[in-house]
Amino acid sequence: MKDTDTTADNGAYLTREALMSLSRRVLEHQGFSAEQARALGETLVAAQMDASHSHGLYRLLGIVQTLRQGAAVADAVPEVEDVAAGVVRVDAGGGFSPLAFELGLPLLVGKARDAGVALMAINHCVHSTALWVELERLTEQGLVAIVCNPTQAYMAPHGGSRPLLGTNPLAFGWPRPGREPLVFDFATSAIARGDIELHRREGKPIPEGWGVDRDGAPCTDPEEVLDHGAMLPFGQHKGSALALMVELIAGPMIGDLLSVESSEHDAGRAGLPYHGELIIAIDPARTAGATSEAHMDRAERLFDELLGQGARLPAQRRYRERALSESRGAWVPQALLDDIEALLA
Amino acid sequence: MKDTDTTADNGAYLTREALMSLSRRVLEHQGFSAEQARALGETLVAAQMDASHSHGLYRLLGIVQTLRQGAAVADAVPEVEDVAAGVVRVDAGGGFSPLAFELGLPLLVGKARDAGVALMAINHCVHSTALWVELERLTEQGLVAIVCNPTQAYMAPHGGSRPLLGTNPLAFGWPRPGREPLVFDFATSAIARGDIELHRREGKPIPEGWGVDRDGAPCTDPEEVLDHGAMLPFGQHKGSALALMVELIAGPMIGDLLSVESSEHDAGRAGLPYHGELIIAIDPARTAGATSEAHMDRAERLFDELLGQGARLPAQRRYRERALSESRGAWVPQALLDDIEALLA
Repeated sequence: MKDTDTTADNGAYLTREALMSLSRRVLEHQGFSAEQARALGETLVAAQMDASHSHGLYRLLGIVQTLRQGAAVADAVPEVEDVAAGVVRVDAGGGFSPLAFELGLPLLVGKARDAGVALMAINHCVHSTALWVELERLTEQGLVAIVCNPTQAYMAPHGGSRPLLGTNPLAFGWPRPGREPLVFDFATSAIARGDIELHRREGKPIPEGWGVDRDGAPCTDPEEVLDHGAMLPFGQHKGSALALMVELIAGPMIGDLLSVESSEHDAGRAGLPYHGELIIAIDPARTAGATSEAHMDRAERLFDELLGQGARLPAQRRYRERALSESRGAWVPQALLDDIEALLA
Repeated sequence: MKDTDTTADNGAYLTREALMSLSRRVLEHQGFSAEQARALGETLVAAQMDASHSHGLYRLLGIVQTLRQGAAVADAVPEVEDVAAGVVRVDAGGGFSPLAFELGLPLLVGKARDAGVALMAINHCVHSTALWVELERLTEQGLVAIVCNPTQAYMAPHGGSRPLLGTNPLAFGWPRPGREPLVFDFATSAIARGDIELHRREGKPIPEGWGVDRDGAPCTDPEEVLDHGAMLPFGQHKGSALALMVELIAGPMIGDLLSVESSEHDAGRAGLPYHGELIIAIDPARTAGATSEAHMDRAERLFDELLGQGARLPAQRRYRERALSESRGAWVPQALLDDIEALLA
């Protein structure tokens, strides 16, 4: 494999170009249009460069599985609609979200600059991606952004006992001139679904608070939680309320599915979630007024004081990994490379 | 006292009109303009009717204290500015927030209907109120809304040890045609500051997880947490990230103070926080498209299923209390009535 350092044991360090080439080859070989493959590949590679393995090239396996189930449109051409001074709608046409996001982005940015605030509804998309990749496309334009989406009915509401809400990620980005943006991106569940799956694979019990069994009782068996019980929200009733908010504003409010409806659509195939996505973009040059740069500088004081007392800013670990990946390539385990190669057969 | 049922022991049930009359008399007697007294009174009475005692008439004491410290302008006339297609700014002029909110509301609603999404920045206001009261003014117009504000530097960030962030409430409202809206309104701290103060008054230790001592160590002494240590966020790093988001979007993004700057402004007087407030309003008739009513109906299915498994919707307890208060009056303890009467001397 080109651009691959094969001296590492049980894996390889791949350059950004090698990751991109591999992703595109797999996706095009599996039937994705060139544009879909490029947009999707860029998102996966961005995650891999940040050492976010669960959102990186590992996702190729689930993407191909979802496609083979007929649950995604490989050559979808997203349609962008100018709805109102503050609203862009993109119909992803059953394709994955990255190309839909990319095509709607210029209109969203323009509206945010003109109106001060604008939102983009992406409808009918199969989701596969890390939201922070999209956030950075907005923060690099100097915009503040919030992104969220439902998933599937994996989680019981606080005080409930059965799967109803999604793990509903909520992400926020804040531009920092001359630096990487402040970005957070977290599931509103106590823990990501992938972490419970990891415990199942390793045969380990999960901590209390992550899930309940089929009767709604606290449960530390990952298999029972994933297959018969339900995950739990983070932060008790507050996290549960946030998950509910995401269901509503990135579901019915934009004319798209609830997590429970996405699960019905999936019909037990265990494919990637099919749903909508909401992006809100705000231009601080409009909302903070004429002296917006001075106001944004005051935020830096907050970050300095936060770091000064030993707390961490979200995303700093990812930025360190990114810098490492740029210099020596991004690590990909050999087992994953083997699985990916098999998709090229 | 008129309209007061004085047969109850150690307190009285007051009608909405009696509560309003009492609030206005106190506020005007203390020097508030008639408009400021009316708008502020309506907010306090709404909270009292919902049996939210910490946000009800009890707040008159803190409001008067803040005014006597010279930290609020009693006759401020808020100025509304039409900034952009999606942005309204209201300069509260150092007054309390309710009148500023009320004066900016029609322009905000109009912009949300035209552009699909709009935001209102209230600047230079003294905050005193429950955010849900403002949310309901938007949901009754059929709008979805998010409201938040910084407070003062009461809370350490997750992983930190010293006060830096506010308790930063985040509130969300969702219109339900023919019913009370779905509304949540919570502090991003593990617990409201008032609950820790209650433990101090009662000489009780607080549970672990609410705060740290002056050295940043876990602490169950409410006095130490309030006077020398720091409160903690809810939900570990996720709640901390949300508190940080509120600091930024309702602080520098709208050209207003961080919680730590609000504390500096307060200069140890222990007055009510001086800061900005951010309101985002979205019209689902624009974002959900032509069939928005059918989409909003799907949300009702989510609420039904949530209630069906024994979970609760936020605000239901308040709505029950409100109905009770409408029929038999809202309970006010005699000790509070005595304190309020003293303000009329």
